[in-house]
Amino acid sequence: MNTIQSYIKDNKQRFLNELIELLKIPSVSADSAYKKDVLLTADFVLESLKKAGCDNVEMCETPGYPIIYGEKIIDKNLPTVLVYGHYDVQPADPIELWTSPPFEPVIKNTEIHPEGAIFARGACDDKGQMYMHVKALEYMTSTGNLPCNVKFMIEGEEEVGSESLAWFVPRNTEKLANDVIIISDTGMIANDIPSITTGLRGLSYVEVEVTGPNRDLHSGLYGGAVANPINILTKMIASLHDENNHITIPGFYDNVEELSTEERAEMAKAPFSLEKYKDALKIGDVHGEAGYSTNERNAIRPTLDVNGIWGGYTGEGAKTVIASKAFAKISMRLVPNQDWKEITELFKKHFESIAPKSVTVLVKPHHGGQGYVTPIDNTAYKAASKAYETSFGKTPIPQRSGGSIPIVALFEQHLKSKTILMGFGLDSDAIHSPNEHFGVWNYLKGIETIPYFYKYFTEMSK
Amino acid sequence: MNTIQSYIKDNKQRFLNELIELLKIPSVSADSAYKKDVLLTADFVLESLKKAGCDNVEMCETPGYPIIYGEKIIDKNLPTVLVYGHYDVQPADPIELWTSPPFEPVIKNTEIHPEGAIFARGACDDKGQMYMHVKALEYMTSTGNLPCNVKFMIEGEEEVGSESLAWFVPRNTEKLANDVIIISDTGMIANDIPSITTGLRGLSYVEVEVTGPNRDLHSGLYGGAVANPINILTKMIASLHDENNHITIPGFYDNVEELSTEERAEMAKAPFSLEKYKDALKIGDVHGEAGYSTNERNAIRPTLDVNGIWGGYTGEGAKTVIASKAFAKISMRLVPNQDWKEITELFKKHFESIAPKSVTVLVKPHHGGQGYVTPIDNTAYKAASKAYETSFGKTPIPQRSGGSIPIVALFEQHLKSKTILMGFGLDSDAIHSPNEHFGVWNYLKGIETIPYFYKYFTEMSK
Repeated sequence: MNTIQSYIKDNKQRFLNELIELLKIPSVSADSAYKKDVLLTADFVLESLKKAGCDNVEMCETPGYPIIYGEKIIDKNLPTVLVYGHYDVQPADPIELWTSPPFEPVIKNTEIHPEGAIFARGACDDKGQMYMHVKALEYMTSTGNLPCNVKFMIEGEEEVGSESLAWFVPRNTEKLANDVIIISDTGMIANDIPSITTGLRGLSYVEVEVTGPNRDLHSGLYGGAVANPINILTKMIASLHDENNHITIPGFYDNVEELSTEERAEMAKAPFSLEKYKDALKIGDVHGEAGYSTNERNAIRPTLDVNGIWGGYTGEGAKTVIASKAFAKISMRLVPNQDWKEITELFKKHFESIAPKSVTVLVKPHHGGQGYVTPIDNTAYKAASKAYETSFGKTPIPQRSGGSIPIVALFEQHLKSKTILMGFGLDSDAIHSPNEHFGVWNYLKGIETIPYFYKYFTEMSK
Repeated sequence: MNTIQSYIKDNKQRFLNELIELLKIPSVSADSAYKKDVLLTADFVLESLKKAGCDNVEMCETPGYPIIYGEKIIDKNLPTVLVYGHYDVQPADPIELWTSPPFEPVIKNTEIHPEGAIFARGACDDKGQMYMHVKALEYMTSTGNLPCNVKFMIEGEEEVGSESLAWFVPRNTEKLANDVIIISDTGMIANDIPSITTGLRGLSYVEVEVTGPNRDLHSGLYGGAVANPINILTKMIASLHDENNHITIPGFYDNVEELSTEERAEMAKAPFSLEKYKDALKIGDVHGEAGYSTNERNAIRPTLDVNGIWGGYTGEGAKTVIASKAFAKISMRLVPNQDWKEITELFKKHFESIAPKSVTVLVKPHHGGQGYVTPIDNTAYKAASKAYETSFGKTPIPQRSGGSIPIVALFEQHLKSKTILMGFGLDSDAIHSPNEHFGVWNYLKGIETIPYFYKYFTEMSK
């Protein structure tokens, strides 16, 4: 099956050009101003699946953005792989920190990507990694190397909680029936240290609004006598972590899975340099929950972060005002066994309970999802591992990720199948940040590795 | 001198129309986008002083916006009154909360203003109150009732710290020489309870910037392991007040003037209903420093308020990001004897000292000013008191205001003269807030009262 290498060699430029076209469309699902572009991106994905050899390609309507479905069924008796990905992207702001426009993709060389990296919002998360699967399918169908059945399900609301997918999946369990789900929406440790993500954190995302006086007030005439909603909000948020950076919400840790000393020791073997980590982020020190290492803090422990805060006068110069309202967007990363709906309730109850009588508080749940852990002894993991060995020449390391793909738990619940997370991005690719990029080498390596997974999974499933 | 009443009766509509024209120009000094309008407003004031009978009217250049000067010297041996006011206004935002456009003045009746109030940004602070003096002068010059010399000094940077005035005054002490300074930029207790402001708070206004990682990060991949600048900022701000709402900055209270039990008892006589106060602001409870009443908290005690805060994603929907930076605008109201420069230094030193190693902190001082107390036994206060008695038929109550007019202390330092604060606005006029307004009755009452002050001050100065 060495022809995959030659196929990539012959089509490399086209593979890059097609992805660049896809990246030019600003499919920001969080901002309704981009609705037209999100729909244009759906069309693009639909057409690319047809070209790659999919049958029955359709744009499935949902309460929100459409889900693109396509399939290639070659033999009912062969296993079926379901590919999941998303065509929407994170907002690009803060726009001023981008060195090139987020939706005008350019290839630049970096220290970590000497062969170049595509800089654009969505380059890695998830357009680039999703499109690897489309191109891998194109190779398999056009060269007669597709060893099993395949289905694609590409959604447009992953960055805002996949609500329409949660609506779609239970209504289409037959159409989506499969033996394994494959997703490339995570990362690996390094280009010379391939890894497979075996754990994901859950998520609870809420927005809070603190209201004081019924109008903005002059801070001289009222300052000191009336509750300032911004000051109160800072007090309330600050109280959510204690001096050891434990989260203070009652019941928050009740169901948190405690790893054994052995498991933690196993995790600790993953290569990691605290100095390099701090240097890469230009921080004087790390900061987190007492008693846990950096890799544990962002993988096996739950967190609470303010993702946005605003209130009062934020313009040029000075305004001596006491704002009537203050706002914050707060997200909690959850670990397996923490139920996101329950945690959201606990947060709401607690946050409302700590509000002083001088203000009123509104907690609006945004969205959320459950955590997930993949067993490393199942066929899918073994096939993926062998695929990496073949293309990378190295056995991949199983790794817990701090990120969340809530729908993975949803898939297991409704489709009764396991998900294998084959990510080819790097933490340094700046997903969700200005100057997001995806290594050209990583993009092509993904296209190379995926067909091996199909091959080995089919063989091992016999 | 009853002709002032008839003069007002005959010219009432013109007085209103002229003020409305002045209010139509959006002279927002804090926002450079309005520079042209601020300068147009300066022209308007210049012309209106000429029309009112001033001689030697000039637009005095400064490093910032011009100061309008004009004078009417009738006899070197008579006392000289210096009128100070400002032609700039606060920003209008949040614009969406205005019931009519901030720079399209309209007269509406309200419960407190049955004879109507002019709704517009600057209606009360300070265009309306400044223009009362121009119209009072017009009356005195056009009817031969000017009993003494008068000088006008109207600036355009009061809402952003009066830096150019601080540059101008020491350079023009002779031009500005006077026996008393009169300012209408404060309020009174109620239309049937005239009061004279005898105390002002000082101000220190700073902007803080907390920087964590060198770029925005994915809150899943880094959440819990890296200091979140917004969470850190909330912790730092929250720590600035203890559980009794005392400010925790070391040395902050060192020079705070402690009033005697007698003085506090005297203050407590001012009519005040906590229920009405809470109801007017629609708040469940007041909030402030333990051991002090509401009127003490906003008058004789120093405060620390966040006037604006921002960081991370504040747009529609959800973004799971850890921001690289978080910001806040913080102002401290100071009482007499607290030096604003010293307090600014104390804040800077303390705020930097409480920053954890995981972030860097930048404190940018904006501007500030000293507090001030007027003695109530001097000629100016007595003359003002008698003027109110004549026009209101009631003796005014001396009142400490929580607001700041930093330049009052500046005047005393360089011009060696006392300032009398004759304010005709009400706390409910919503200055610095949406729907700022100024009662038509108050506007005309001010025009009526001012000439009496000139008369009595001249008589008492003999």
